[in-house]
Amino acid sequence: MIEETSKEAIDLQIQKAAEAFQFLKKTTVKERAVFMNAVADKIEALGEELLAVAHEETSLPLARLSGEKSRTVGQWRIYAKAVSTGIYTEARIDLAQPDTLKSDLRKFNTGIGPVVVFGASNFPLAFSTAGGDTASAVGAGCPVIVKAHPAHPKTSKIMADTIAAAVQESGWPAGVFNHITGTSHETGTYLVTHKDIKAVAFTGSFQGGKALFDQANQREEPIPVFAEMGSINPVFAFQHALESRAEALAKEYAVSLTLGVGQFCTNPGVFVALKSESLNRFITTLKNEIHAVKPVNMLHQGIFENFEKCKIMTGSYPGVSIIAEADTEAAEWQGRAMVAETTAGNFIENIALSEEVFGPFGMIVQCDTAEEMMQVAKSLKGQLTVTVAALYEDIHENMDLISQLKDKCGRFLFNGMPTGVEVVYAMQHGGSFPSTTDVRFTSVGPDAVKRFVRPVSFQNWPDEFLPDELKNSNPLQITRIVDGELISGPIKL
Amino acid sequence: MIEETSKEAIDLQIQKAAEAFQFLKKTTVKERAVFMNAVADKIEALGEELLAVAHEETSLPLARLSGEKSRTVGQWRIYAKAVSTGIYTEARIDLAQPDTLKSDLRKFNTGIGPVVVFGASNFPLAFSTAGGDTASAVGAGCPVIVKAHPAHPKTSKIMADTIAAAVQESGWPAGVFNHITGTSHETGTYLVTHKDIKAVAFTGSFQGGKALFDQANQREEPIPVFAEMGSINPVFAFQHALESRAEALAKEYAVSLTLGVGQFCTNPGVFVALKSESLNRFITTLKNEIHAVKPVNMLHQGIFENFEKCKIMTGSYPGVSIIAEADTEAAEWQGRAMVAETTAGNFIENIALSEEVFGPFGMIVQCDTAEEMMQVAKSLKGQLTVTVAALYEDIHENMDLISQLKDKCGRFLFNGMPTGVEVVYAMQHGGSFPSTTDVRFTSVGPDAVKRFVRPVSFQNWPDEFLPDELKNSNPLQITRIVDGELISGPIKL
Repeated sequence: MIEETSKEAIDLQIQKAAEAFQFLKKTTVKERAVFMNAVADKIEALGEELLAVAHEETSLPLARLSGEKSRTVGQWRIYAKAVSTGIYTEARIDLAQPDTLKSDLRKFNTGIGPVVVFGASNFPLAFSTAGGDTASAVGAGCPVIVKAHPAHPKTSKIMADTIAAAVQESGWPAGVFNHITGTSHETGTYLVTHKDIKAVAFTGSFQGGKALFDQANQREEPIPVFAEMGSINPVFAFQHALESRAEALAKEYAVSLTLGVGQFCTNPGVFVALKSESLNRFITTLKNEIHAVKPVNMLHQGIFENFEKCKIMTGSYPGVSIIAEADTEAAEWQGRAMVAETTAGNFIENIALSEEVFGPFGMIVQCDTAEEMMQVAKSLKGQLTVTVAALYEDIHENMDLISQLKDKCGRFLFNGMPTGVEVVYAMQHGGSFPSTTDVRFTSVGPDAVKRFVRPVSFQNWPDEFLPDELKNSNPLQITRIVDGELISGPIKL
Repeated sequence: MIEETSKEAIDLQIQKAAEAFQFLKKTTVKERAVFMNAVADKIEALGEELLAVAHEETSLPLARLSGEKSRTVGQWRIYAKAVSTGIYTEARIDLAQPDTLKSDLRKFNTGIGPVVVFGASNFPLAFSTAGGDTASAVGAGCPVIVKAHPAHPKTSKIMADTIAAAVQESGWPAGVFNHITGTSHETGTYLVTHKDIKAVAFTGSFQGGKALFDQANQREEPIPVFAEMGSINPVFAFQHALESRAEALAKEYAVSLTLGVGQFCTNPGVFVALKSESLNRFITTLKNEIHAVKPVNMLHQGIFENFEKCKIMTGSYPGVSIIAEADTEAAEWQGRAMVAETTAGNFIENIALSEEVFGPFGMIVQCDTAEEMMQVAKSLKGQLTVTVAALYEDIHENMDLISQLKDKCGRFLFNGMPTGVEVVYAMQHGGSFPSTTDVRFTSVGPDAVKRFVRPVSFQNWPDEFLPDELKNSNPLQITRIVDGELISGPIKL
């Protein structure tokens, strides 16, 4: 039974967060980095209990959870390192030119204000209470109000207590981190429409993300919502690649499609190729692979039931044929992998077929002509990823299609499979709507910090009143743009 | 009589723009910079006719228009220079690590797609057809569809022809720049809700900007709208400053308030101070200054009528007293400067008093206590600028209020007046809603380019298929983040 935090308690927490923002605003990037590393250390030190609780609540294997814990710790550390360099501070200084009456102008990025984070169910550690959204918001200088995901309340509580302990030991105000529980949509709405909330991060379903986006835009003061809502992550396989390695590709695809019971935002739900003998070989191998997949419990009953419903609805759609299903009967909430096929014409005409089925379900889209492949590409909505299975000559022969596909996604793969989202600077985890609500930002990698900052210019302020990031002496030793040049040292006047 | 571009013609132009986007996507930052400098040269070469036409259409003095022309040319050049450095490309490269199966990931910013620009009436050159929005969108790699401002159609046509000539001479597709005319709201709505439009820039009224923002968010695929909608740009004057230079401050304030008949987004519409003998001295001088201001024609009849209406409405609001008006009777569309005063309590209680009056109208808000000044600060909506008139000791004595004021604005001034928006890296022309629709971006200074880009990650792509910005050899010689370090040279593998 999950307790619903009362509106009065939420008001109090947001008030504390707003007060903590006044404190956080005055912290430097170095101080925030120290705090973030302290959180990382504390999470790292959490014992077996965390993994056991998370396993009990999510059915995710212990090995996976252990990896996810390392990823979570790593995220706090790499974000801390990036923040400490000042890269997200974007300090720019244009010195006064008394001859021309030009002012002294100095700009830097400061936190946008209190941020509400909705944790994801499918990554109880890395994308939830102490996940990348919380780390990037704190890195930006924003207090966080986490709405715990109801599918893993105990895991959420452990992580919340861990962050709260780091806050306390740092001597920071408790309002820097706040934890709210509940299952009602009203609680979410109340948070997003509260006047003191300045941004929202969400990972989950389209329905959930879009509802929050609309609520945030209808506020008297609209605020940004960064909702990552998943996509079908198509794989476009080209002829030379299929001819040279149809079987290997089928095995790679099956692994990626069924990894973690298909419960990844980057699950490759659609495979597009020209009809050919090599595509037939691909399909034969894929069928064998899918038949052999052992069903495993999904994250929770709701996700399982949704998977079953969507799988049956899509698999039985006119013009769609189910071509393989995992042999083993499923028990409890086990997701049983399935692959279907359809024609390009059918796929293009029926928008329902390009809806995400969250779980191990794939659709092979068979095209008669290269032009049909282009039409499939054009029909796609925004995607987190698009993968091109190709040899060099495939690329040379399909330049227009490749260019079209690149427009549709945030991350564009040359071979490989899209599952596996690395936490590095060059990651883009965010595509055009409806995969996310804001194509301009990523929710993975240190650049995620950029979501929660806003610039402020200081005109003609005396050095002593400027934030350290902008002082002449450059006490934080960050790289700044001074009169148009990248400079890491102090300013000598 | 302004011709209304038909929907069919708009469709055709947007289709051309979408095709031109496929071309622009493949241009490098260096190529775009060359083009932008060519536009600058062409605008610079425009003769007296441009100024004469703009003067006839806007009533703005020739000297001001000549300055605005230089500013416009300068904008294209500084944006070109900034774009050519690759700063907005934000290239990040994380090299493969075969030992750990880490992929090769490379990210850069590409254009977001075709952008609609609505020109402003108050800057017919620098914020209109060939203004900062157009320059920054092209710099980002986006084709532009300009909706000409109906208050200066001939000026707009000259500028549009100039850009079109530069497009043609560069051998670029004509769809890079498109010019649409009309006066109906429907035309604006049609543009903003067209599926191939990916972003919108607007400078104008709150009603206009908010309507476009709502339309863009209600699209099937929501898109960003950067609307700069003005604000009241309060000046908070502190005691030591007032005591030491009440008269000088009154003169500065009067000049800024009435500059360009008050038709600036950064016009300082509100002056907040503690009741005191020195405030009385300030007011006495201000009255004399305002009485002496010569009325001048405003931009067009609509703006004049709106100014008269708002001035009378605000000036006759309960609890508000008019304390000075320009002596000279106004003729035609001449805006006659006016200053009123009210109490802090009245200002806070009546939200209507913090609405912008576009024109030379100022409101003195008299506070009984420092706490009342804080309450006025807290009651403010988002502002483009906040100015603090202070000596050092005023800052030391009012730290909390200063911190509060900083939260309310994009540009924070220590003395001086907010009119005059320099085109430099460190400029922030954008504040919290409702001064703009997106506090995270600026519409002035090269950082304006950031509004129109989106990141794309390339995973494991062979070097030959990567954009030049991400190739190992770094042919554009831009600064990139490679494995977390800022590097300007090539990558040696």
